Amino acid sequence: MPKKIFFTPGPSAIYFTVEEHLRTALKDQVMEVNHRSTQAEGYYKTAVENLKSLMDIPEDYQIFFLSSATEIWERQLQNLVIENSFHYCYGAFSNRFYDFAADWHLKPQKATAEFGSFPNTDPSLIPADTELISMALNETSTGVSFPTEDIYAIRKAHPDALIAVDGVSAFPVVDLDFSQVDSAYFSVQKCFGLPAGLGVWIVSPRAIEKSEQKRARGHSIGSYQALPNLLKNGTKYQTTFTANVLDIFLLSKVTGDMLEKGLDVIRREAKYKSALLYHTIEQHPKLSAFVPDKKLRSETVAVANTEGDSAAIINALKDKGFVIGNGYGAYKGKQIRIASFPTHSKELIELLADTLMTL
Amino acid sequence: MPKKIFFTPGPSAIYFTVEEHLRTALKDQVMEVNHRSTQAEGYYKTAVENLKSLMDIPEDYQIFFLSSATEIWERQLQNLVIENSFHYCYGAFSNRFYDFAADWHLKPQKATAEFGSFPNTDPSLIPADTELISMALNETSTGVSFPTEDIYAIRKAHPDALIAVDGVSAFPVVDLDFSQVDSAYFSVQKCFGLPAGLGVWIVSPRAIEKSEQKRARGHSIGSYQALPNLLKNGTKYQTTFTANVLDIFLLSKVTGDMLEKGLDVIRREAKYKSALLYHTIEQHPKLSAFVPDKKLRSETVAVANTEGDSAAIINALKDKGFVIGNGYGAYKGKQIRIASFPTHSKELIELLADTLMTL
Repeated sequence: MPKKIFFTPGPSAIYFTVEEHLRTALKDQVMEVNHRSTQAEGYYKTAVENLKSLMDIPEDYQIFFLSSATEIWERQLQNLVIENSFHYCYGAFSNRFYDFAADWHLKPQKATAEFGSFPNTDPSLIPADTELISMALNETSTGVSFPTEDIYAIRKAHPDALIAVDGVSAFPVVDLDFSQVDSAYFSVQKCFGLPAGLGVWIVSPRAIEKSEQKRARGHSIGSYQALPNLLKNGTKYQTTFTANVLDIFLLSKVTGDMLEKGLDVIRREAKYKSALLYHTIEQHPKLSAFVPDKKLRSETVAVANTEGDSAAIINALKDKGFVIGNGYGAYKGKQIRIASFPTHSKELIELLADTLMTL
Repeated sequence: MPKKIFFTPGPSAIYFTVEEHLRTALKDQVMEVNHRSTQAEGYYKTAVENLKSLMDIPEDYQIFFLSSATEIWERQLQNLVIENSFHYCYGAFSNRFYDFAADWHLKPQKATAEFGSFPNTDPSLIPADTELISMALNETSTGVSFPTEDIYAIRKAHPDALIAVDGVSAFPVVDLDFSQVDSAYFSVQKCFGLPAGLGVWIVSPRAIEKSEQKRARGHSIGSYQALPNLLKNGTKYQTTFTANVLDIFLLSKVTGDMLEKGLDVIRREAKYKSALLYHTIEQHPKLSAFVPDKKLRSETVAVANTEGDSAAIINALKDKGFVIGNGYGAYKGKQIRIASFPTHSKELIELLADTLMTL
């Protein structure tokens, strides 16, 4: 059976060079070396340097490797919030982060919007005593993106609050000025096209200070993943636990490939692929764009309402070897979601669009 | 350059079938399927069924996949302890779990012993109000094992406390009666010979009840990895986050291989390999066993004091392609540690022993 092509916005197609890098990993015995060996530290260091170079992350920001973006939600609450977090909620994932804060017995507040639309981002609506303000650059459940200009305006109005940006399915495609935020994170199975099992946390010096302040005031900030501990190990290019060394190695390789290709090319292609997908959705007799406001449409996850059960389209595509995503949660059966990540070539998206039009 | 053979007790040699299973993973696109797809659920289910069958785990116990054994230390404290945990501390890892409890602002107590020796396990020394009693079956830092008979005696004397067993570098080699414990856990990069990035948590119904009681009393038990949440997803063979699907797949395969070989064979071989390694250590002019009490010596990690700097032996072996472990922490440079995990064949351990004797 020929291989399927995954356009799902969860785990998705692996980056086109991953298979080759896996062969190198076997040859170099990446899966067998100690996670505190010079060899493993080298993978960590290269991955950090490549990420900083690729996304223009300030030199004094730290990059830590955890197990998932989901874990990073928790670590942010533990390290960066004593009581008051503020969450923009406009889809399943941004809502879930808010729910975590409630589970942790904090006093989270939120600005909400219906799925597919966008909350009011007027900074004056955020309480003055907010310690951490959170938004998802790209709500993977709805395909709604958060304009970076709005982040910068919020930063200006609340210079003392920490800003935490969910970059899952956005980085490195979305261009963010990292100096305007204190915490940014993603998991590698989206735009970086890697096997699942690794979360990447980008942290400002201010965020690390906040964790130290919280601890100094007598609050627990956890143990092995507490930011001062992450810092202590991270400056040695070591994780605080036996992390997924293979994934860190693969990340070091794929970020190298992306640097070679050029992020400007990747971003230009993303715009083209997204425009093509939305054009196809608008032309298609059985599809309509879920996000009405064009400037809020994600460049990496296109979401469409379907006439009738979305299973018809999903299954017809699957028969041809294309795997796309279903609607998320309550939208299952009513929508399709299509990832156009850096590993999805223009030609592949064109082929998918052409095939969609025949259905 | 020929491949090295890893006898390190951290990440170690991968199980001899892993490379073949990686090829299958690429063919079956394991790294690309959604973690909530039927395909991924199948890997979870097979891994659980194989583990239960392999180690004779009671049917009503649950098995959850987290990111590491380190993480499971934290989740145990969050879910299973309101205030009082008790820790047997006789090496770096058992001490670290105790430190975690302090970091989490609990009131941990401990029974300690010098590295290489063993604490007093008289059950009457454990306070009556202890909620959770913890021990490591195998202290990977020292090569000291905790006799299972002592666990059963503690259980008998404290029937209401939960018992938590660290099985890292012990499972599946050490034969534990799981019905006598409530929480048991390991990470897959030791005896299962898999790439790092997955922790396995085996949980009794009593433990799940305890987490529900703790929450009902108004305490936070965390969010996505809270036991009731792990249970809700686990009964569907799903993780609560985008876990290392590749590792779960590989675990399902390697446990299948182990079932085919037979755990009795694996355990018999472990006894032989351990006896051979300790015999070699005792015969060797520059080595002496670290653990004086023969019945406390681990069957999977042999530890020896070295005459002079251990680097001499470690480097001489490395030149011949054998990578062994250094002493842990303060014992670095003073000891060697050698893993004899299931992937290390009798012949390989014999070759290593012969080579050691020439140094």
